[in-house]
Amino acid sequence: MAEAMHTIAVVSKLFSNFFVHEVLQGIEPHLFKGPYEVNYYPTTGRIDVEKDMLKTILYEKRADAVISISVPMDEELLQAYKNSGIPVIFIEESCEGGHTVKVDNVKGSYIATEYLIKKGHKKIGVLAGEFLDKRTNSMVIERLIGYRKAIEDYGMTLNESIIKHVAYYSFEEGRQKVREFLSEKAGLDAVFCAAGDLCAMGVIEELRENHIKIPDDISVVGYDDIMTAQYYKPALTTVKQPLEEMGSDAFELAVKCISGEVKIDEHRLIILDPKFIIRKSA
Amino acid sequence: MAEAMHTIAVVSKLFSNFFVHEVLQGIEPHLFKGPYEVNYYPTTGRIDVEKDMLKTILYEKRADAVISISVPMDEELLQAYKNSGIPVIFIEESCEGGHTVKVDNVKGSYIATEYLIKKGHKKIGVLAGEFLDKRTNSMVIERLIGYRKAIEDYGMTLNESIIKHVAYYSFEEGRQKVREFLSEKAGLDAVFCAAGDLCAMGVIEELRENHIKIPDDISVVGYDDIMTAQYYKPALTTVKQPLEEMGSDAFELAVKCISGEVKIDEHRLIILDPKFIIRKSA
Repeated sequence: MAEAMHTIAVVSKLFSNFFVHEVLQGIEPHLFKGPYEVNYYPTTGRIDVEKDMLKTILYEKRADAVISISVPMDEELLQAYKNSGIPVIFIEESCEGGHTVKVDNVKGSYIATEYLIKKGHKKIGVLAGEFLDKRTNSMVIERLIGYRKAIEDYGMTLNESIIKHVAYYSFEEGRQKVREFLSEKAGLDAVFCAAGDLCAMGVIEELRENHIKIPDDISVVGYDDIMTAQYYKPALTTVKQPLEEMGSDAFELAVKCISGEVKIDEHRLIILDPKFIIRKSA
Repeated sequence: MAEAMHTIAVVSKLFSNFFVHEVLQGIEPHLFKGPYEVNYYPTTGRIDVEKDMLKTILYEKRADAVISISVPMDEELLQAYKNSGIPVIFIEESCEGGHTVKVDNVKGSYIATEYLIKKGHKKIGVLAGEFLDKRTNSMVIERLIGYRKAIEDYGMTLNESIIKHVAYYSFEEGRQKVREFLSEKAGLDAVFCAAGDLCAMGVIEELRENHIKIPDDISVVGYDDIMTAQYYKPALTTVKQPLEEMGSDAFELAVKCISGEVKIDEHRLIILDPKFIIRKSA
């Protein structure tokens, strides 16, 4: 394989999370046609392991191209890859001088908020993630920007007290935050769960137990479009991220780089649009 | 890395399916402590790619141990690995002469069926997978053995006409099969979805649309315990596979093999029990 090549290395902190799982669903269908193979390298996010793995791939010539899912690379290392003629494609976390495939998180939040505003909602609560690591940060920040921008664009008053943060993106946190909203008498007519569908399902469950009708009394919008979102009662209105498409586009870009169709110094940037899916919860 | 080692190679047909995703959730937490690293190799199931990858790992000395998730290995290749002192641990698909970690599918189906029988159900329909590839086959066959054994053990009459097969384990197929049962006037008082929770959710949806109460009129049991099974209405009674535990056990066994605590010729066999989770649907 080291000589025959046609191998693409994919590095990610972990491969057992929802985000990466969906990205792989966009990469793996390409493998059946051949001739490209992929190898996956989980770095755990530990700096020493990360550097070690990235150097192993480079110096043992393990790949013709690298796809990095949110794994940062310093300038020196990226340059070493380029000098060896190995292109690097970054998913989500962009790096100066590398090709990048991203999703527009600002837009995702904007269209969800805009939809709720146009439906006549006046007080839209938000559940967003906490600020944890770098990738989560930019995702959380961008989604809040999208929400705030829509509120401003439509001349509504921004109320920071109805923006709450969750650490685990869980069903239970969704319930907990609804209890807080209710005890604070927040008077919401909609909740936008930028922190994901599972959280939105928890919001719905807690509202229902409090005899609040969805969407008649309060509308609920999720994020992600997880597999069972469409089967929930009521079926979730949500923002679908094009994660499969990101994986597929990154793979195709890697192949174009290997074939020379895209030059290693071109610095391609692909920004994908999220898709708003209207069902029953809003 | 080639010299320092402490690397475990994990091979699987794909890494973007539910089964493997859960197994990785048992493997990856081990990586944070170090010193072991893992690399993943998706073989796509194409024989040439599979052989090529397995030989690359062996001859390029890419790993101290190999975990194979349902990827078969012929005797000659397994022997070559053993001769190089590289232990191989098989998950699900066992291979003569290798260590194996499996889940007891017969038992999983047996306990689900037994539970329904003890609840007084007399006519328990089954949705099982189709016979596709080797791994699916043994899984489908074992689950049907468990069902049939429970029916026999409790002196009930086995009725092959109420065993139906689904190809995609999907929500829509669950609905479709209920329509078939209803048009055939099968007169079921329970449905055991050995083909998984998503299928069971489809069964519930279709029954509900036909004004059939769950579990009062018909009980429904799923398989897998997917993330949202507990949040469905009614919450799914289901068989949880210890997939994380399988991944974790395989990883720990690999480490013991590398350290010499377990000898390469011992042929360890670990069979894990599924867990029956009682909620509201049965």
